[in-house]
Amino acid sequence: MSETLPSIADIEQARRRISAHARLTPVLRDEALDEEIGARVHFKCENLQRVGAFKFRGACNAVFALDDADAARGVVTHSSGNHGAALALAAALRGIPAHIVVPENANALKLRNIVEAGGIVHTCVPTLAAREAACSAIGRERGARLVHPYSDALVMAGQGTAALELLDQVNGLDAFIAPVGGGGLMSGCATALRARSPHTVLVGAEPSGADDAQRSLAAGHVVPIERPDSICDGLLATIGEINRRVLHTHQVEVLTVDDAAVRSAMRRLWERLKLIVEPSSAITYAVLRAHRERFRGQRVGLLLSGGNVDLDASGLAAS
Amino acid sequence: MSETLPSIADIEQARRRISAHARLTPVLRDEALDEEIGARVHFKCENLQRVGAFKFRGACNAVFALDDADAARGVVTHSSGNHGAALALAAALRGIPAHIVVPENANALKLRNIVEAGGIVHTCVPTLAAREAACSAIGRERGARLVHPYSDALVMAGQGTAALELLDQVNGLDAFIAPVGGGGLMSGCATALRARSPHTVLVGAEPSGADDAQRSLAAGHVVPIERPDSICDGLLATIGEINRRVLHTHQVEVLTVDDAAVRSAMRRLWERLKLIVEPSSAITYAVLRAHRERFRGQRVGLLLSGGNVDLDASGLAAS
Repeated sequence: MSETLPSIADIEQARRRISAHARLTPVLRDEALDEEIGARVHFKCENLQRVGAFKFRGACNAVFALDDADAARGVVTHSSGNHGAALALAAALRGIPAHIVVPENANALKLRNIVEAGGIVHTCVPTLAAREAACSAIGRERGARLVHPYSDALVMAGQGTAALELLDQVNGLDAFIAPVGGGGLMSGCATALRARSPHTVLVGAEPSGADDAQRSLAAGHVVPIERPDSICDGLLATIGEINRRVLHTHQVEVLTVDDAAVRSAMRRLWERLKLIVEPSSAITYAVLRAHRERFRGQRVGLLLSGGNVDLDASGLAAS
Repeated sequence: MSETLPSIADIEQARRRISAHARLTPVLRDEALDEEIGARVHFKCENLQRVGAFKFRGACNAVFALDDADAARGVVTHSSGNHGAALALAAALRGIPAHIVVPENANALKLRNIVEAGGIVHTCVPTLAAREAACSAIGRERGARLVHPYSDALVMAGQGTAALELLDQVNGLDAFIAPVGGGGLMSGCATALRARSPHTVLVGAEPSGADDAQRSLAAGHVVPIERPDSICDGLLATIGEINRRVLHTHQVEVLTVDDAAVRSAMRRLWERLKLIVEPSSAITYAVLRAHRERFRGQRVGLLLSGGNVDLDASGLAAS
């Protein structure tokens, strides 16, 4: 885990590094949603990224930044979610092993995504201590490099490429909203936008049942939530200390909404955009809708971070 | 209803005419789907087109081709589906009235789409005769131009722009698959591809419970199905005689699959592409999957025609 903050140069380099592997995702607009909000809303569709999430950008940058000797020993992370699948795919593209530490109770769909992408799964008991211990052991025994899901400068820089791309695809942004879990995505995007579009207002979207980022920014240090509770399963992690610092430095404001608002936003995006977005993505639209008077008449970029919904759990009839 | 066949020049002109209004829709690929099929599959995402369907291209071309005097009298069509909403939006963009004749039993969601797009709804009893009579009456009384959903050269030319665009977005196509209902989309696309990529194999996808196009091509004349039955609600119309002639001229082969194959394909596309596609779109992937040995190693373009699924009827939990 690196303690260096990412710079705009790191993000530019990441963009070149991952360009052969990551998708240039489309930006969508919808007239009815514009009207609902009273603003011009640009949806950056990272749910259409490889493995269905922006996580691929960060993992790919971390994997391809390694020199050949380090790369040969592989990479390791703990993640039951999109970051695990993203790292597995990035490693497979480079032809190196990816060890993914997963809790025994992990969701079967997410496990399948990791295995399909070629990851080597190691299961452990479902505590943070056990996950970190398993990662350390694999790092020690095999020399595999730890790629942390968000508190890693290469991961942040890779994820920030989504914002650079978005800037090229639109005609200016007055505001930008991205979800905040551990804070890696917003760290990269805030760094990119402050450098290239300094007047863009930066807003993090967080569930009210897991509002550690909002509290941590107010307190000036990381304030973990004891029992985070939200349908936004990608946003339950506690913000990293380095990520808190990046968000503070770049004046990111965090706004929260409850799960009912997220569900309603998700439904609306499915209906209008024809896109499958997960709750952790739809929260950006929920925040915009809840605070629409602040953004009236503005050009707003929303980062739709991922689309990995368990269609069985969603009750979708087609099966 | 015009009896002229569309030419490649008509399609090029349509492309220029609608370029300020229609979206340039993205083309997506997915490694897991490529592997499942054993081919390179390019998904042309017309579900991301305005009003959620390729229908906007045809309607827009028909509306903007009118001279000012004709346009001022408005347009009329009968459609309970995407064409009605598409024509209403195109007319609204030109600032002219659109009269949409809709059967009393039309789906509430589709009705809402027509009204939201600014269409003037006229209800009638749910028979083809009543719908045609209502259209004729409106045409007579108000001088509104009939824009037939598929047997109209301007509509076909507009819809064919999707295939022209796709050709610009990929590096050659060995085969192209589009759904066939009334046959307007395939008429336009076949015309475009025969002119610009003569060796591309053209395949129409049709539900086995509504296989009138396959039968009509075999018989050499239109063979209606008495009680078409399929979840592909956009593909139940009988192929138009002019459309049958275009498909015959351009050697389009029609392949069929049953509803179970369509359901399974729709589920797979939602899961992998993160796109909401309707059954009438997913049928293209179902046909490709059922005949994968024929397309092995090829570059295949699939037209995903629309994404207007009733999320309530689909049983989606989020509400």
